Amino acid sequence: MSLLVVGSVAFDSIRTPFGQAEEILGGAATYMSVAASWFAPVRVVAVVGEDFSERHREVFRARSIDITGLERAPGRSFRWRGEYVGAMNEAHTLETHLNVFAEFAPKIPPAYRESEYLFLGNIDPALQLHVREQLPNVRLAGLDSMNYWIDGKLADLKKALAAVHIVMLNEGEVRMLSGHHNLKSAAKSVQAMGPRTVVIKRGEHGVTLFGEQSIFSAPAYPLEKVHDPTGAGDTFAGGFMGHLARTGDHSDSNLRRAVIYGSVMASFAVEEFGLERLLTLTPQEIETRYREFKSLTHFDA
Amino acid sequence: MSLLVVGSVAFDSIRTPFGQAEEILGGAATYMSVAASWFAPVRVVAVVGEDFSERHREVFRARSIDITGLERAPGRSFRWRGEYVGAMNEAHTLETHLNVFAEFAPKIPPAYRESEYLFLGNIDPALQLHVREQLPNVRLAGLDSMNYWIDGKLADLKKALAAVHIVMLNEGEVRMLSGHHNLKSAAKSVQAMGPRTVVIKRGEHGVTLFGEQSIFSAPAYPLEKVHDPTGAGDTFAGGFMGHLARTGDHSDSNLRRAVIYGSVMASFAVEEFGLERLLTLTPQEIETRYREFKSLTHFDA
Repeated sequence: MSLLVVGSVAFDSIRTPFGQAEEILGGAATYMSVAASWFAPVRVVAVVGEDFSERHREVFRARSIDITGLERAPGRSFRWRGEYVGAMNEAHTLETHLNVFAEFAPKIPPAYRESEYLFLGNIDPALQLHVREQLPNVRLAGLDSMNYWIDGKLADLKKALAAVHIVMLNEGEVRMLSGHHNLKSAAKSVQAMGPRTVVIKRGEHGVTLFGEQSIFSAPAYPLEKVHDPTGAGDTFAGGFMGHLARTGDHSDSNLRRAVIYGSVMASFAVEEFGLERLLTLTPQEIETRYREFKSLTHFDA
Repeated sequence: MSLLVVGSVAFDSIRTPFGQAEEILGGAATYMSVAASWFAPVRVVAVVGEDFSERHREVFRARSIDITGLERAPGRSFRWRGEYVGAMNEAHTLETHLNVFAEFAPKIPPAYRESEYLFLGNIDPALQLHVREQLPNVRLAGLDSMNYWIDGKLADLKKALAAVHIVMLNEGEVRMLSGHHNLKSAAKSVQAMGPRTVVIKRGEHGVTLFGEQSIFSAPAYPLEKVHDPTGAGDTFAGGFMGHLARTGDHSDSNLRRAVIYGSVMASFAVEEFGLERLLTLTPQEIETRYREFKSLTHFDA
C-alpha cells in the first residue's frame, strides 16, 4: 500500500568531527521518503525552489518515489547549516533560511488522495491538520512535531494530534507537551490527546513505543562509525511507516517490527553524510541488520 | 556459590520531588549485598563507625548476609546528603563526610578467602587491587570505579582493571577512561585494558554489555513511580553478580540474563526510598518483572 509523506526538502550544509558537506539534499520529507522507499510505494508533498535541479529530482526517481506533489516555487529552497561536536548527540544550528518553505501550503495531487498511509513531517500543525482532512480514509496517519509548535501553536497541535493514530516525538518534546518528567506518565498523557501509539525517539539510546496494549523498547544499534546524525529521526519514521505500509498490519507485534526496521534504517543513515548510505543499500543489508538487532536484544526467558 | 562485595556503607540523607529521608542506611556495599542476597550467599567487607547500631546490623542479618568483614572503627560512619530534581537523572551532592571511610583498609576475614565471586565497589583502585590479590582463586571478579579515580589514580586503576574479568562504568566514565566518544570504540579500548566484559550503565536508558562474543543492550524498565534513584547502579551490580554466583555460568547467554536480573533489581530499588523496596521483595516479584522485561524487548525475528 502507498505511503504519503509531507514535509521539508532542504539543502543541508553539515560539519561533523568526520568531515563536512555543502548544500547536500536533505530535509525531513527527503529522509522519510528515501527510507520508506525500501519498503513500499512512496509519494511526497513538499516545496522546493528554482535551485532544485533535474539532478535532485533524479535522486527521488531512482528510488521510484512519486514526486507529482513536489511543488516548485519561485525563489530558493530551504537551507540549513549545522554542526555536531564531540559525541554528536545534538545538532548546533548555525543558519536556517526557510526561503520557499516559509510559505509552504501543502497541495495534495488528486492521484495521492487514495494513499492508505500518511506521515505528516514536522510542519505547522494547522497545515498538518489541513492535509489530514483531505485524506479522511487513510488506514494509518502519523505525525512528527517539535518544541517550536508545542510552545507556539499548542491548540492547533492538539487538534492535529486528535486526528492521527501515531505521534513521534523525542524525550524533551514529549515531556514538554505533557508537562510530565516521567516518560511513562508523559506518554499516557499524550495518548489521551488522541494518538493511540506514542513513539519516543531517544537518539543514541534507541526508541520506546507506548502502544495500546504494551510498551516496547529497542536500543540504538551500536555503531563504531557515525559520520553524520542528520536525518536519523526522519529516517526512523520512514522505515517505521514504510514497514507498516508494506505489511498493512497494525498489530502490537508488527508495530514492534516497524520500530526495528525504523531503527535499522536510522543506523544506516548515520554511517555516511546525508543520504549517501540510504541510496546504496541492498534489501539483504537491511535484513542482516534486522537480525543483528535481534542478536543485540535477545535473552532467554 | 558465594559472592564477596567490598565497598562503602553509609548513612544517606536524600531529597527528591517525592519526599525526603534522613540518615537512612545506604552505600554501595549495602545496595550490592542486599540485591545479591536474593540470588546467592553474600559476604561484605566494609567499614562503619560507632553510630552503626544493632538495628543496622539486623538489616544485613535479615537478608542472611555475612557481615564478619564489617569492621567497626572509632568515629562516625560515612555520610552523604544529596538531592534529585526534575527528571532525577543526576544526584546533586550537597554534603559528603567520609568519616571512617577515609581510612578504609579492607581486611578479608579468613572465612571469606574461598569466595568464588568478587565485586569491588567504587573505592581507591590501589585497595581494589590489594583485595583482588588476596583472592587469587575467584572464578569471576568485577569492579566499579568513577571519574575521581580515572582522573587522579589512573595508573592504579589500570592495574586493578588488568586483574578483573568485568568492569561496570557509566557512559561518561567509559568515555573518560578510554578517550573515545563513541561507546563501541570506548568499550573495545577498555576491554584491551584487561576486563573481557565491559558493562555500561546508562541510567534511565538501560545497560549495554560489551562481551567477548557479542554486544547486548537492555532498556531500563519504564516505571511510573520513581521515588529515589539512589543506589540503582550498585543494586544493578548486586543483581548481576548475584545471578552469576547463583548459576556459576559465565556464558554469553547467562551474562545477558544477569544484565536483566540486575535491571530488575534496580527497577525495584528506585520505587521507594533507600533499601525499602529491596527488603520487602519476593522471589515471585523478581521473576514476574524478569518476564516483563522479556515482553518489553521482544520482537519476532
